[in-house]
Amino acid sequence: MDTAGGPPLVGVVMGSDSDLKLMRPAVDALAEFGVPWEALVASAHRSPDRAGLYAGSARERGLRVIICGAGWAAHLAGVMAASTILPVIGVPLATSPLGGMDALLATAQMPSGVPVATMSLNGARNAAILAVQILALTDPGLAGKLVELKAAMTEKIGERSAELAAKLKTEVR
Amino acid sequence: MDTAGGPPLVGVVMGSDSDLKLMRPAVDALAEFGVPWEALVASAHRSPDRAGLYAGSARERGLRVIICGAGWAAHLAGVMAASTILPVIGVPLATSPLGGMDALLATAQMPSGVPVATMSLNGARNAAILAVQILALTDPGLAGKLVELKAAMTEKIGERSAELAAKLKTEVR
Amino acid sequence: MDTAGGPPLVGVVMGSDSDLKLMRPAVDALAEFGVPWEALVASAHRSPDRAGLYAGSARERGLRVIICGAGWAAHLAGVMAASTILPVIGVPLATSPLGGMDALLATAQMPSGVPVATMSLNGARNAAILAVQILALTDPGLAGKLVELKAAMTEKIGERSAELAAKLKTEVR
Amino acid sequence: MDTAGGPPLVGVVMGSDSDLKLMRPAVDALAEFGVPWEALVASAHRSPDRAGLYAGSARERGLRVIICGAGWAAHLAGVMAASTILPVIGVPLATSPLGGMDALLATAQMPSGVPVATMSLNGARNAAILAVQILALTDPGLAGKLVELKAAMTEKIGERSAELAAKLKTEVR
Amino acid sequence: MDTAGGPPLVGVVMGSDSDLKLMRPAVDALAEFGVPWEALVASAHRSPDRAGLYAGSARERGLRVIICGAGWAAHLAGVMAASTILPVIGVPLATSPLGGMDALLATAQMPSGVPVATMSLNGARNAAILAVQILALTDPGLAGKLVELKAAMTEKIGERSAELAAKLKTEVR
Amino acid sequence: MDTAGGPPLVGVVMGSDSDLKLMRPAVDALAEFGVPWEALVASAHRSPDRAGLYAGSARERGLRVIICGAGWAAHLAGVMAASTILPVIGVPLATSPLGGMDALLATAQMPSGVPVATMSLNGARNAAILAVQILALTDPGLAGKLVELKAAMTEKIGERSAELAAKLKTEVR
Amino acid sequence: MDTAGGPPLVGVVMGSDSDLKLMRPAVDALAEFGVPWEALVASAHRSPDRAGLYAGSARERGLRVIICGAGWAAHLAGVMAASTILPVIGVPLATSPLGGMDALLATAQMPSGVPVATMSLNGARNAAILAVQILALTDPGLAGKLVELKAAMTEKIGERSAELAAKLKTEVR
Amino acid sequence: MDTAGGPPLVGVVMGSDSDLKLMRPAVDALAEFGVPWEALVASAHRSPDRAGLYAGSARERGLRVIICGAGWAAHLAGVMAASTILPVIGVPLATSPLGGMDALLATAQMPSGVPVATMSLNGARNAAILAVQILALTDPGLAGKLVELKAAMTEKIGERSAELAAKLKTEVR
Repeated sequence: MDTAGGPPLVGVVMGSDSDLKLMRPAVDALAEFGVPWEALVASAHRSPDRAGLYAGSARERGLRVIICGAGWAAHLAGVMAASTILPVIGVPLATSPLGGMDALLATAQMPSGVPVATMSLNGARNAAILAVQILALTDPGLAGKLVELKAAMTEKIGERSAELAAKLKTEVR
Repeated sequence: MDTAGGPPLVGVVMGSDSDLKLMRPAVDALAEFGVPWEALVASAHRSPDRAGLYAGSARERGLRVIICGAGWAAHLAGVMAASTILPVIGVPLATSPLGGMDALLATAQMPSGVPVATMSLNGARNAAILAVQILALTDPGLAGKLVELKAAMTEKIGERSAELAAKLKTEVR
Repeated sequence: MDTAGGPPLVGVVMGSDSDLKLMRPAVDALAEFGVPWEALVASAHRSPDRAGLYAGSARERGLRVIICGAGWAAHLAGVMAASTILPVIGVPLATSPLGGMDALLATAQMPSGVPVATMSLNGARNAAILAVQILALTDPGLAGKLVELKAAMTEKIGERSAELAAKLKTEVR
Repeated sequence: MDTAGGPPLVGVVMGSDSDLKLMRPAVDALAEFGVPWEALVASAHRSPDRAGLYAGSARERGLRVIICGAGWAAHLAGVMAASTILPVIGVPLATSPLGGMDALLATAQMPSGVPVATMSLNGARNAAILAVQILALTDPGLAGKLVELKAAMTEKIGERSAELAAKLKTEVR
Repeated sequence: MDTAGGPPLVGVVMGSDSDLKLMRPAVDALAEFGVPWEALVASAHRSPDRAGLYAGSARERGLRVIICGAGWAAHLAGVMAASTILPVIGVPLATSPLGGMDALLATAQMPSGVPVATMSLNGARNAAILAVQILALTDPGLAGKLVELKAAMTEKIGERSAELAAKLKTEVR
Repeated sequence: MDTAGGPPLVGVVMGSDSDLKLMRPAVDALAEFGVPWEALVASAHRSPDRAGLYAGSARERGLRVIICGAGWAAHLAGVMAASTILPVIGVPLATSPLGGMDALLATAQMPSGVPVATMSLNGARNAAILAVQILALTDPGLAGKLVELKAAMTEKIGERSAELAAKLKTEVR
Repeated sequence: MDTAGGPPLVGVVMGSDSDLKLMRPAVDALAEFGVPWEALVASAHRSPDRAGLYAGSARERGLRVIICGAGWAAHLAGVMAASTILPVIGVPLATSPLGGMDALLATAQMPSGVPVATMSLNGARNAAILAVQILALTDPGLAGKLVELKAAMTEKIGERSAELAAKLKTEVR
Repeated sequence: MDTAGGPPLVGVVMGSDSDLKLMRPAVDALAEFGVPWEALVASAHRSPDRAGLYAGSARERGLRVIICGAGWAAHLAGVMAASTILPVIGVPLATSPLGGMDALLATAQMPSGVPVATMSLNGARNAAILAVQILALTDPGLAGKLVELKAAMTEKIGERSAELAAKLKTEVR
């Protein structure tokens, strides 16, 4: 586990170290926002106690949100959510031959009483942004950064639109 | 719109009044936890301005979380998330002939930058619990109630297990 | 928990007491074969410790096979398999609006190292027969009963075929 | 935005500039038919106001048809259709790990009152042809070109069939 | 065939008379808008010539749009589109055990050159509205009615929202 | 087994007598065409020898076509096709919670070398018609009846169309 | 069109010349069996008359079976079957982003009265074998070749099994 | 066929020698555990007798478990299970354009009375581990090795977690 500048507020857990490439955007986005994080590998099936203990102690250790990425029969987020009252965000990973439909359903279709906030397939960056949105409810600095991000996205769309129009003007007739 | 005991902290939006039966558990759960809520009907397609304005002004009006339930090409949560930095929770409703697969994908598969916390199909109660988990990060009273809920669920499972064992003992041999 | 005539060899676990109707055929089939069983309710999400402890202690308590039935994001069998080296049989239940596709994928798509023997949707009776096939490897009496079952199925197919032929002879021309 | 030879009659909108490769055939086909077009990037989620304003003002600016291409939870066409009475044509793009099933459902499954004319996956060229079919209802020149296109397609099929027969004659025995 | 007040502008074709219940909303909506229509049964498979001839002669008979509803391997709209340059709107009907997924794919996934404007499953009313949107491009009266419809939908959403808020105020606490 | 007026030419096999209701249209259609048939129950899994022997001896017993109806993991047609060079027609039955998708895939997706002529879900009547089409290749009487059937279908579509037009004329305005 | 050694008995039709690679195995297998064939390109949508005329005249021209390969909304086989009483074999091609699910459903899910004998995805070789099985009903020479093919397949499996066993013996321990 | 150090206890059957790459992990894992195995190619469709005879004689030849891997309409495991009372483990292989959904359904959805223990897609290694779990019920040595495997998996997860944390510490800020 590792933290970035302070006791970690967000835990980024992945079911296998081979998921790092897909989950890396979560860590990068948290770093971008200056939110202290820690990252670890834990498996609902290959290290169940490790997973349960991590979730069970997360709140008292100061964590506020847990992000879990897993593919196939993605039980990791659900197992974490079973052991904590912290918000748990699940990132279904499209690593199986079924294009991630298995991970999406296994992450989202939780029973009543134990929610998992499910992101899009491979939506690690969005998981981090949702975590920041949650933290921003009581952190005006983060809220300001989110407002800036929204504005930047809109502006970027406008720029890209202008570039595209210019490019097509030249190329098509 | 309506509130329960204080300025609303959670907005429960549904795409059609015919979705009320499926979304009612969200309101009931919020009331159970004593979290002030308001409920409304707004449609990404039939009242787009209403939806955008609601989301756009939600934060300054004091809301903390928006819950959106919709079926079919369920754009409501995504459209709300586009206009606010508040956490938006989407409840895909299984109201189409495809068993809700359309609503699940339309709710979850959001582009990078605009997350929607997607619940299980018809998971309105879980949406409320996730909202409470978010609010509980800074409200020890709510956190206590969530801990109690978890304990009560576990206890209930134990009781049901005992009843089931007793019932089967009698019936099977 | 309950046992039928001796220390239980097979544990039949269901994620909710509302699953009893679909899981009952497992218990009935075990009773038919005279295999001692116990039944309980345990949830991977609502009583995670109960589920983990049950699986973790199952082998030393004399169990030989664990059967788990669950619907939706059916994590129960996987969570049990994570905590035992006993064979775990998963019965995906078709209780969601997606016709059980979610439960089938969540039960079957386990990661390398932690198998779950997945049955057909609602295949509780087959779970019991597989359990008996496993026990029969070292119990000639059970093996004999399985051979009889196979013969009876074949015979029944023959009888039904004759009845069907007779019925159609009369009705169609 | 850019137009080809006159005030644009068709707007070609894409959710991201990375969709250009898949949407380019729409622009090319419109140019082929000599229909003035404009192209832009607008996102239902990352630039919601831009999208809504574009649709809301499209009719008075002289547009007749709007073509929208988007992948994943493709809300763009629906959001446009919510703000205009112009015909909106949606092109679901197969850019997600689910082969575009998400975009297809999110584009087609619109609620009553707000239709989106959904094309095949990546069917940008067909979107342009449908737009031309609509414009051709009051433009005999375009109608003539469509009749020619149909004839050319039929003729090309005939030529390809002859080539294929010749090729196989030589190669197979 | 039948027309409502003038030479028909829209043809409503269904693959079987058993589809009438699902396709009726198309006819009703056209009547609502005062658009002359005709309705018929024609099958791509059981009356291929009838279907082809209808489409082939539709334009010269004054039709402007053809709406086709069909279930299962829904070829009707595609077959019609093959024989006309008029816009063809396809309504996939959810009449098979697969919830209409077959009809949706068979209607939407048309090859390049022959578009079908695909509606949502059972979206007959939307087909009519799209037809009206197309006709409204050159009929200010129809355009006005569409603007009114949009306003009425928005107003109705507002009313329903108020009713829902009032109802919940009473019932929940 | 039973035959209708002569040594049977077509065998209608179903995996369970509970499939009779869905498979009955095959027998009825064969009787309609005057094609001698026999019907039986045989299961690829519960009476594998019976199924294999039936297929293996079918040709020498004078059968020309075998029709197999089965649901779930529908192996019956494939197992039959493995043991005969007669054309085998498979009817996937929609009897599972997955709407028959399992039966359709299990029937159609045969390996190279062993074809099964797969019908639509519950397409028992079509299976009989395909069998008749095959027999009609060398039986002009049957060919004539097929031509009549096609004509009757077309005529019936015309009649139903007229009725529908009349009905709507009265009811809609 | 082209024939191999005699008036063609089987027509192999593909919806696009780009399908040749996938449909080639049908032609090759027919040639292997010495069955005269012809191959052509015809499209249900881009050359509907050509397709209908081909099917409508096929029987009088001496054809016995029509094989149709098409991808996406694969209407070709159905449209052919609508215009002939010859057996029509459909080969759904996996050429779309949906892995061919669209083509499979569009080919198989035909309405009552108009069967299409659907093969596996890309099952062109199986289509030819089914055609040969049909022709073999009245051609003992072909029947003999089919029996040989079955024997050869079985033998080949045996040889491959021996090779595999030998290979593994060396490599694994 | 081949065995590793003693009369084989587990048979590893694959439907085609081209499946070896995907099924190899089963053989490797059995060798790892020192469980004698044999491997062969047998096809439910191309060598049905070979498959049936193998299963029918497996028990008397001393086998305890049969593992079957197959893709597409994967009937192999079901056909084996039909002819033996030994536990049969099915490995659906993702070798078709549908990502293995066909094989998964064809393997898992077995009728009542004939279970197949279905693994994840391409789950050959898990099939071997399940076989070992079954054998370990009466073999303390194997049980010990399974306990070690579980411990090793957990330890490896811990190591990988530490490496990942270290790596990210360096790279991200």
